[in-house]
Amino acid sequence: MSAAIETLQAPGVGYPVFLGPAGARVAGLVAGRDVLVVSDENVAAYHLPGVREQLATAARCRSLILPAGEMHKTLAGFQTVVDTLAHETFHRDAVLVALGGGVVGDLGGFAAACYQRGIDWIAVPTTLLAQVDAAIGGKTGVNHPRGKNLIGAFHDPLAVWADPAHLVTLPPREFRAGLAEVVKYGLGLDAGFFAWLEAHAQALACGTDSAVREAVRRSVQLKLGVVAEDRTERGRRALLNLGHTVGHALETALGHGAWLHGEAVAVGLVAATALAAARGTVETALPARVRALLQCFSLPVALPADLDRAALAEALAIDKKIAAGRLRFIGLRALGAAEIWDDVAAQELAAALDAAAGPTRADC
Amino acid sequence: MSAAIETLQAPGVGYPVFLGPAGARVAGLVAGRDVLVVSDENVAAYHLPGVREQLATAARCRSLILPAGEMHKTLAGFQTVVDTLAHETFHRDAVLVALGGGVVGDLGGFAAACYQRGIDWIAVPTTLLAQVDAAIGGKTGVNHPRGKNLIGAFHDPLAVWADPAHLVTLPPREFRAGLAEVVKYGLGLDAGFFAWLEAHAQALACGTDSAVREAVRRSVQLKLGVVAEDRTERGRRALLNLGHTVGHALETALGHGAWLHGEAVAVGLVAATALAAARGTVETALPARVRALLQCFSLPVALPADLDRAALAEALAIDKKIAAGRLRFIGLRALGAAEIWDDVAAQELAAALDAAAGPTRADC
Repeated sequence: MSAAIETLQAPGVGYPVFLGPAGARVAGLVAGRDVLVVSDENVAAYHLPGVREQLATAARCRSLILPAGEMHKTLAGFQTVVDTLAHETFHRDAVLVALGGGVVGDLGGFAAACYQRGIDWIAVPTTLLAQVDAAIGGKTGVNHPRGKNLIGAFHDPLAVWADPAHLVTLPPREFRAGLAEVVKYGLGLDAGFFAWLEAHAQALACGTDSAVREAVRRSVQLKLGVVAEDRTERGRRALLNLGHTVGHALETALGHGAWLHGEAVAVGLVAATALAAARGTVETALPARVRALLQCFSLPVALPADLDRAALAEALAIDKKIAAGRLRFIGLRALGAAEIWDDVAAQELAAALDAAAGPTRADC
Repeated sequence: MSAAIETLQAPGVGYPVFLGPAGARVAGLVAGRDVLVVSDENVAAYHLPGVREQLATAARCRSLILPAGEMHKTLAGFQTVVDTLAHETFHRDAVLVALGGGVVGDLGGFAAACYQRGIDWIAVPTTLLAQVDAAIGGKTGVNHPRGKNLIGAFHDPLAVWADPAHLVTLPPREFRAGLAEVVKYGLGLDAGFFAWLEAHAQALACGTDSAVREAVRRSVQLKLGVVAEDRTERGRRALLNLGHTVGHALETALGHGAWLHGEAVAVGLVAATALAAARGTVETALPARVRALLQCFSLPVALPADLDRAALAEALAIDKKIAAGRLRFIGLRALGAAEIWDDVAAQELAAALDAAAGPTRADC
């Protein structure tokens, strides 16, 4: 059952997401074409030989292995990929295969977007975060000293190959961080999925194949649905930033790299739920449910006790500045129904952060 | 009459081309928004103050003046523009105005394509070449050591403001080089326009306002028509490369910068016409007509006597390699009817180049 291949699609999204061991499908897409597989040191060690073997249909297959880590998601990293494409005379009909997590996907996809004004690419996400979020939606790009993903393009892949089997080599902490984004989908978009997550929390926490696959499937379907309506994030797609206003500020305040993105998002989800509960749009018990679920995944649910709250406030103010004066907070109209709130006062947010600083009990 | 504003559009092309003194129209587009005007040293000296004055409707207007010249159309130049946008905290609703020739338009447009995954931009081409060609069609990008425009994006502008009045400060040699692309439109796409050019050659050579305006209008309309059918150059748009196979190779063989792009294209047009005449698809008198027209514009119509023909052959072979083994030559099915020929043998091309090396008389 778990080795079956499924094809997930949404009307208005021009590419399929293959779930499962879909190497043969991907091989069909690159048959007779030149392929550059871009990966990073960590992922390549586990998965590059197997993937290259499956892509034996390509006319020519080269690999480029980048150093791992968000600090390499820069214009210099982009240039490394483009230089390789140019020096090895890849043509406009070549295919770039991005094999790795969000960094490799964003960087490789952006190089594919710009080389010869756009060549085909295939995303092969190997982290839970990338499978359920980063690889879906055509967003590509690199960081700039002044902001994350400040340089980039919307460039849809030819296909996404999300194989849960690739996740077994993922460090446990990264796997758990990915679950924070999974919780985001349930909390913000689908109350039924949230209930399913609560019911299968332990199986997910243990990485049980069938549960992980179902979590990936439903997350991908939810994301495809949102992207189909709003490819370039002018409206509804912003709802996917639930938990991210506080999450991003927390990452900044702690210094990038101290916490994983998903860990910071987990605390952001707690804060967003607390704020909604304070406004009365969700039941008062919901914050405790969200905390319990996240704790079952061993994710943080509170600000670090020694956090410099002034630094956090400053990071939130920068976010506000970027949004042209208004803090654009993703709130909850109800469980499973995120919406944009642009009337959140500093005091209200501070109270929600205090709630996210309170003690909780794990209940998994 | 010549000061009237016209709006040129084509079904399927999502932006207007304003012909004439359309500053007020452009001011309407940027009203209340943050604007970054990108220009170069040469153009800024003449036109920046006037354009900035017309954009007084903007909420905030900044300028970035780049060094002039094709050698600055690089990823480093791109980064300079993006850094300015980021450090001056331009938001996603900002507008970039590219005021200059093809280099400024390609570089500025590419920065607009990638900053925050795409912000609006307006092209204000100030060279004849850019008004009739580079600024129309949404192609943006920068050069790579391994090839021109190897890094880029298709990113349509909000509008193009082509004002023939901006051309009066153009060095005569650059103006004449732009006329080569104008001849390309007639020769390759519109026999009636070619005849019009022959009839008005002297007026154009002298830069007579009404003739220049008509040449820009008809060229823009022809290009819009082609772009409407083939935005991302998978088919018909390739016809706009008439004269460019030999032209690009000539630029390479002479060393970039020795000849202007339009000058090399002029010789390429002669070679393409000679090849078509040899095949019998056009009348035998056409090569002489093409040469006479180009010479009336003081454009070169023959390979330099001291040209290293081996270097030219090598540059043509590289082009062939890039096209995956086949030389993709733009030929003429008839006057005004370009088509792709992928069966041009090396010997046939060499004969056409010999024809382009022969003597001609000016007859203007």
